[in-house]
Amino acid sequence: MEKEEDDDASQAGVNKASKGGIIYGDYLQLDKIVSAQVLQSEVKGNKIHDEHLFIVTHQAYELWFKQILFELDSVRHIFISGHVRDERNMLKVNTRIHRIVMIFRLLVDQFAVLETMTALDFFDFREYLSPASGFQSLQFRLLENKIGVPDNLRVPYNRRHYRDNFKGSDSEMLLATEQEPTLLKLVEEWLERTPGLEVDGFNFWERLQINIFDGLNQEKEKIEKMPDSEDKEELMAELVKQRETFTSLFDEKRHDHLMSKGERRLSYKALQGALMIYFYREEPRFQVPFQLLTSLMDIDTLMTKWRYNHVCMVHRMIGSKAGTGGSSGYHYLRSTVSDRYKVFVDLFNLATFLVPRHWVPKLNPNVHTFPYMAECCDSSYCSSEDSD
Amino acid sequence: MEKEEDDDASQAGVNKASKGGIIYGDYLQLDKIVSAQVLQSEVKGNKIHDEHLFIVTHQAYELWFKQILFELDSVRHIFISGHVRDERNMLKVNTRIHRIVMIFRLLVDQFAVLETMTALDFFDFREYLSPASGFQSLQFRLLENKIGVPDNLRVPYNRRHYRDNFKGSDSEMLLATEQEPTLLKLVEEWLERTPGLEVDGFNFWERLQINIFDGLNQEKEKIEKMPDSEDKEELMAELVKQRETFTSLFDEKRHDHLMSKGERRLSYKALQGALMIYFYREEPRFQVPFQLLTSLMDIDTLMTKWRYNHVCMVHRMIGSKAGTGGSSGYHYLRSTVSDRYKVFVDLFNLATFLVPRHWVPKLNPNVHTFPYMAECCDSSYCSSEDSD
Amino acid sequence: MEKEEDDDASQAGVNKASKGGIIYGDYLQLDKIVSAQVLQSEVKGNKIHDEHLFIVTHQAYELWFKQILFELDSVRHIFISGHVRDERNMLKVNTRIHRIVMIFRLLVDQFAVLETMTALDFFDFREYLSPASGFQSLQFRLLENKIGVPDNLRVPYNRRHYRDNFKGSDSEMLLATEQEPTLLKLVEEWLERTPGLEVDGFNFWERLQINIFDGLNQEKEKIEKMPDSEDKEELMAELVKQRETFTSLFDEKRHDHLMSKGERRLSYKALQGALMIYFYREEPRFQVPFQLLTSLMDIDTLMTKWRYNHVCMVHRMIGSKAGTGGSSGYHYLRSTVSDRYKVFVDLFNLATFLVPRHWVPKLNPNVHTFPYMAECCDSSYCSSEDSD
Amino acid sequence: MEKEEDDDASQAGVNKASKGGIIYGDYLQLDKIVSAQVLQSEVKGNKIHDEHLFIVTHQAYELWFKQILFELDSVRHIFISGHVRDERNMLKVNTRIHRIVMIFRLLVDQFAVLETMTALDFFDFREYLSPASGFQSLQFRLLENKIGVPDNLRVPYNRRHYRDNFKGSDSEMLLATEQEPTLLKLVEEWLERTPGLEVDGFNFWERLQINIFDGLNQEKEKIEKMPDSEDKEELMAELVKQRETFTSLFDEKRHDHLMSKGERRLSYKALQGALMIYFYREEPRFQVPFQLLTSLMDIDTLMTKWRYNHVCMVHRMIGSKAGTGGSSGYHYLRSTVSDRYKVFVDLFNLATFLVPRHWVPKLNPNVHTFPYMAECCDSSYCSSEDSD
Repeated sequence: MEKEEDDDASQAGVNKASKGGIIYGDYLQLDKIVSAQVLQSEVKGNKIHDEHLFIVTHQAYELWFKQILFELDSVRHIFISGHVRDERNMLKVNTRIHRIVMIFRLLVDQFAVLETMTALDFFDFREYLSPASGFQSLQFRLLENKIGVPDNLRVPYNRRHYRDNFKGSDSEMLLATEQEPTLLKLVEEWLERTPGLEVDGFNFWERLQINIFDGLNQEKEKIEKMPDSEDKEELMAELVKQRETFTSLFDEKRHDHLMSKGERRLSYKALQGALMIYFYREEPRFQVPFQLLTSLMDIDTLMTKWRYNHVCMVHRMIGSKAGTGGSSGYHYLRSTVSDRYKVFVDLFNLATFLVPRHWVPKLNPNVHTFPYMAECCDSSYCSSEDSD
Repeated sequence: MEKEEDDDASQAGVNKASKGGIIYGDYLQLDKIVSAQVLQSEVKGNKIHDEHLFIVTHQAYELWFKQILFELDSVRHIFISGHVRDERNMLKVNTRIHRIVMIFRLLVDQFAVLETMTALDFFDFREYLSPASGFQSLQFRLLENKIGVPDNLRVPYNRRHYRDNFKGSDSEMLLATEQEPTLLKLVEEWLERTPGLEVDGFNFWERLQINIFDGLNQEKEKIEKMPDSEDKEELMAELVKQRETFTSLFDEKRHDHLMSKGERRLSYKALQGALMIYFYREEPRFQVPFQLLTSLMDIDTLMTKWRYNHVCMVHRMIGSKAGTGGSSGYHYLRSTVSDRYKVFVDLFNLATFLVPRHWVPKLNPNVHTFPYMAECCDSSYCSSEDSD
Repeated sequence: MEKEEDDDASQAGVNKASKGGIIYGDYLQLDKIVSAQVLQSEVKGNKIHDEHLFIVTHQAYELWFKQILFELDSVRHIFISGHVRDERNMLKVNTRIHRIVMIFRLLVDQFAVLETMTALDFFDFREYLSPASGFQSLQFRLLENKIGVPDNLRVPYNRRHYRDNFKGSDSEMLLATEQEPTLLKLVEEWLERTPGLEVDGFNFWERLQINIFDGLNQEKEKIEKMPDSEDKEELMAELVKQRETFTSLFDEKRHDHLMSKGERRLSYKALQGALMIYFYREEPRFQVPFQLLTSLMDIDTLMTKWRYNHVCMVHRMIGSKAGTGGSSGYHYLRSTVSDRYKVFVDLFNLATFLVPRHWVPKLNPNVHTFPYMAECCDSSYCSSEDSD
Repeated sequence: MEKEEDDDASQAGVNKASKGGIIYGDYLQLDKIVSAQVLQSEVKGNKIHDEHLFIVTHQAYELWFKQILFELDSVRHIFISGHVRDERNMLKVNTRIHRIVMIFRLLVDQFAVLETMTALDFFDFREYLSPASGFQSLQFRLLENKIGVPDNLRVPYNRRHYRDNFKGSDSEMLLATEQEPTLLKLVEEWLERTPGLEVDGFNFWERLQINIFDGLNQEKEKIEKMPDSEDKEELMAELVKQRETFTSLFDEKRHDHLMSKGERRLSYKALQGALMIYFYREEPRFQVPFQLLTSLMDIDTLMTKWRYNHVCMVHRMIGSKAGTGGSSGYHYLRSTVSDRYKVFVDLFNLATFLVPRHWVPKLNPNVHTFPYMAECCDSSYCSSEDSD
C-alpha cells in the first residue's frame, strides 16, 4: 500500500462542529432539497425508476436558473443605479456575466445525464406528468425577459401568447419583467455613453465614415488601373457590394427600419459604441468592456445551444408526438432555435462591418487621453458598489 | 429576418394546462427548491453576493448525490434480491451504473462554476459558515460506504473516527451502511459465480495456470538458446520477474495476506471471475459483464478525480488555512486522494496480469456452450425485476 | 514542502531508451505533425498571430476525422464480411461505434478553443485563406457518405452538386463511398435479420399488430362507457389520432412512400427489427444491439450539434458575410442543421410508436429460446474477427 | 419532411475554389497530417486495431502542445521586449494566457477518448512501442521549462536527471529553455513594478503592515475584555496563531529562506505586488492584472489535473507494471502530481494572508490617481506590439 503523504499535516486540525453553530445540512437546508422528489408514477401506484432522474435533473436546472437570475439582477442593479459609471464596478459586472456563461456551459453539458434515459423509460411514466411541461418554467421565462427576449418576437405556444400560459401571479411577474429595463436596454444605454463618440471630441463615427469611403475609393482606383479581365470585373463587383454594405452602416434611417422589424436591437448610437469598443479593444479603458461584449455573445450562443440540445433530446424521447403540456413538442422547440431569440444579435452582425486596421481612425495619446483614464467617482451617486 | 421553418407545425398543439392537473412548478416542488437559499452573511447583516453561488453549487451537488444514491440502492437491490441471476436484469444494472458514471462526470466539471468565485470573495463570508464543512455531507459519506470505502482505511478527521463527526441519527445511518452489503461485496459474490470457473467444468483457473507456466518455460528456452550478451541477461532477468509476478497470482495465501492489509479487496475466487471476464470479454455472455467492470473502474476514477478537483479548489480558496469545520483543510483533503479510497482497485491491478492471447485457454463452442447461453429464470425467485 | 510519497517506488524503473529502438518523436512522426503549420499571412508578409490557432484547430479536427474513418471502416468491414453473424463481434462493433461517439463529443467541445479567437482577429488574416474553405474537407464528406448521408438530400453548395466542388481524384473517392454499402445500409440488413421476426417463428410483427389494435379497442370501449362530457370527446379524439398513427405503422405502402421522399431511410423489415430490439432490449441477446442503436442515435445527435456549434461560431466570426470559399457562409451552414442530415432519423421517430408494456407480445422462455442463445460460428465464413 | 429555411439565402454564394489559389487540404498540409499514422504492430506483422487511436490521440496532444508553446512564446516576447509596459498590450497577454487555459481544459477532457481503449487492447500492441515513452515528449518538457518548472525540483526519471533522458540536440534545447527567462520570472519582474508599491508613494506594504497589526491589537483588546472561558482561551490561541502568520508575512529573511527551499518562488517584492493586485482588483488599472493572476493559477491547476488524469489512465492500462520507457510507470507519474510542479504556488498560498476589507489601506482618488491612469507609451521602446 502506498505510503500516505504528510499524515501529520492532514490531522493538524481542531474539531469545531461539536461546539454548536450551524452545520452543513442545516446551512444548505437539505431537508427541503433532498425531500422534494415525489414521483407521480409512485403516487399513482406504478413507480417507475427513471422518473427520479427526470425530477432531479429538472430541479438542478431550476437551481442554476435561480443562480443566473441572482447574478443577472445584481448586474442590472449596478447599471440601473448608475454605479456602472464608476469604472471600478466593471470587474463585478464582467465577473458575474462570465459566471452566467460558465453556468450555461454546465447546463448544456447536463443534458448528457438526462440522455441516459431512453425513450422507452420515459414512455413508462410520461402519462403521469401531463399537463406539466418544461414550457411552464417560470424562472426560464423570467431569465429570457430580463436578458431581453422581446415579447413580440416570441414564437406563440399553441397559438397563444406565451404569457397566457401562466397563472395569474406568475403572469404578472412576467409582465413586470417585460416592463423593467432589460440587460439589453441597459447595455445599450451604457454603449451610448462610450467615450470617443462625442461629436465635439474624438468624433469616432464621422472619422470612421471618412476613412472607410476614402479606403474604398482608393481600392476602386487601383482596380480601375488593372487591364480588363474577368478578375477585374469580379473585384469591381465585390467592391460595389462592399460599398453598399458600408453605405447601409452609415444610414440611420435604414437602421431604424431594421430596428422596427426586430432585425436590429441596439440603438444607432449604441451600435457606434460597440464598434468603437471593437476597434479600440486594446486601449486600456476598452479591454474590460470588450470582454463584456464577448461574454454577452457567449450567453446568446450558449442559450441557443441549450435550446438546440433540448430539441435533440426531445426528438429522441418522444419522436414526433405532442409534448406533455400539449404543445407540438419537437416542432415547437425547433422553432425557438432561431436568431429571433438571440438578444445581442447586433454584436454578432457587427462582424459584417470590420475594416482593415489602417482604416480605423488613429488615436493620438497626446491629444486623446480618454482611453487611458478611467472614470472614478466618489460621490454618493456613483460610488463603488460595495453593498449589493 | 430569416424565415422560420414550419410555423404551422410549431403551433399544432392543444393547450392542456388550463384543464387542471399538476403543473411544472408543483411537480418539481420548486417552492422548496428555490426558497432554500439563505445567506448566512445576510442573516448576520453583511450580505455577501458570492455566498449565493456557494450555496447553490453545494445544493446542486447534494441533489446529484441523492440521484446517485437512488441508482446505487436500486442496483444493490437487484443484486441482494437475487434478481441479478436472471440475466435480463444486467441491462438495468449496467445502465444505472453507467448513469452514475455520467453524473460523476458532470460533478467533476461542476467545479468550473464554483471556481468563478475567487479566494477574496470567499474570504468575505467564510467566517459566517463555521463550523459547517463539506466533510459533514451525510449523503457523500453514505455513498462512499454503499460503494464500499472501508471504514478502517479512511483517513481520520482531526484524529477522530470519521463517524464520530456526525450527530446521533446520522452516525447510526452511517453505521448501518457499513454493515449492509456494499456494491463491492455484491459484485464480489457475483464474480465468484462467473460461469467457466467450475473446477468440474471449464476450470479456467487451472487451465490458465498451466498455459502461463508453459508459455514462460518456452520463453525461457528461447532465451537460453541466444548467444551470451547483455541483452540476453536482461531478457532473462525480466523473465524471472514475470515468473514471480505470475507465481504470486496463483498463490492464494499471498492473496489472503494482501487482503488482510487492504491491498486487495476482492476474494480470490472473485478475482478469478474478473480475469475470466477480461479474457473472454468478446463472448456474448461476457460482453455486458465486461462493460460493467469497466464502469465500476470509471466510478472509482471519477470519484478520485472529484476529490482531486476538490483539493485544487480548496488550495486556491484558502491556501494553507484550516477548513471551516476545523480540519487541516488542504492537507486533510490531499490525503484522501489515494488508492485507499479506490474501491475497485483490484480491477485496475488486474492489468498487471494480462497475457498474450494465445496463452488464454481456448473455448470450444461445441463443448463449452455456456458463453452463448444466458441464464433466464421465470421462477418467483429470480424473475425479471419489473417492479423496483 | 510536502513530503513526496513513495520516492523509492517512483525511481524503481530501468532506463530503456538508451538501448536503441523507436522513441516517442519518431513513433508519432512529430517531424511531420509539428512542422505543418505554415501561416499564409506570414508567407504574404503580414504574420497574424491567431492564424496559428486557426491552423492547429483544423488539423486537430482532421486528425480526429481520420480516426473516425478508421473506426467506421473497421465496423463496416465486420458487417460486410459477415463477421457480424458471429455475435462475439458485437462487442467490437459496439465499442468502436461508442468510440466515435466519444470523439464527436470532444469535437463539439473543441469549438471552445477556437472561440478564443475574436471576429477582429480572424478578419486580420481571413483574406489570405481564400478560396480555402472548410466545405472542402474531404474527410468530413467521406465520413458523411460512409455513415449514410444521401447524395440527393444534401443542400447544394452555391447551386452546385456537393461533389462538383472537389477536384478529380477526390471527387472519385467521394463517388466511390456513395456506391459502397453505408453504415446505414449495413445496419439495415442486420436489423432485417433480427431474431423473432420470422413469420414461421415468434412472428413479432403480426403479434404486435394484434395486441395494439386489441388494446385500442379496449380503450375505446372504456371511453364509450363514460358519461358524455368534453373530456370524453377529447379522449375519443385522441384515440382516433392514435389509431391513425398505428394504422400508418402497419401500412407497408405508406412506408415505401415515405422512403421514396427520404422521410424514412430504413426498410420496412429493418424498422420491425429495430422496434423488436426496443421492446425486448432487456433480453440477454438484445442488450448489446439496443446499446448499438442508442449509440447510432448519439452519432447523429452529436454530428448535428457539431454542425450547429459550427454555425454559431461562423455567425460570430463573419456576421453575415460570404465564406472564404465563396459560399453564403452562415446561411449555407444553417441550412445543413436539419433532419435531412440525420442518417438514423427512423430510430428517433420510432419513439412515436411506443406502447404500454402489457401490449408488447409476451415471450415464453420455454418456447422462445432465441433471446437467450447467441449465434456463434466457427466456420471460416463467420469466425471471430481477430485480424482486422 | 420539414421545410428548410431560407433556401435562397443558403445558395447565394459564388464559387471561388475553381479559380485557383490555395485550397483547404493544401493549406492545412493534410498530406503530412493524415499520413503520419504508422502502426508499429502492423510494421511487425500483427496489426492491432487500437494502436491507431493511441497514435492519433498522442498526435493531437502534440499539436496542442505546439499551440501552447506558440502562445507562451508570444507572451514571453511581450514581457521580454518591454512591450508589456505599454498597458495596451495587457489584453493580448491576457487573451493568450486564457487561450492556454482553454486548451488545457480540452486536453484534460481528451483522456475520455483514449479511455475507450481497455487494458487488454493496449496489452496487444504495447510490446511494440518500447522504448518509446510519453516521458520523451520534448514539447511537454519545453512547455514545463518555459512556464517555470525548476530543474532542481523535478522528480528524477529512473534516478537520472530528466534532461539526460533526451538525445543531444533535444537536451540542448531543454537546457536553453532552463536558461531563458521563464514565464514565472517575467511575471515576477512585472509584479515588482506594480504601481502603489513605491516607498515614496502609496507605500502599500508599510501601510498594510501597520493596519494588520493595529487590527490584531484591537482584536486582542476585545478578547481580553471577555470574561474567562474556554471560548476566550480558544479565541486568544487563534489570535496568537494569526499574529504568527502575519509576522511571517512581513519577515523578508523568512521569505528568502522559504525561497531557497523552493517553497516560495516569487521574490519578496513580487509577492507584495501580487497581494496589492488582489486587494485592489476592482481598481480600473488592476482589473486585467487580476484576471491574469487568476489565469496563471488556472494553468497550474489544469496542468496538475492533466497529470492526475494521466496517472489514472496509466493505472488502468498497465496496473503496476513498468512503463514502456522503462520507468516505474504509475509510481513515477504519481510522484509528479505534486505542489513541486505548481509554478505559481505563491499565488495560491497568498489566500493564507487575506484580511478583512477594512484593514486594507484606503486609496484616496484625489491623491492616488495611479489606479485610474494606464501607462501608455509611444516611444519605439514600448510601443503597441503590432507585429508579433
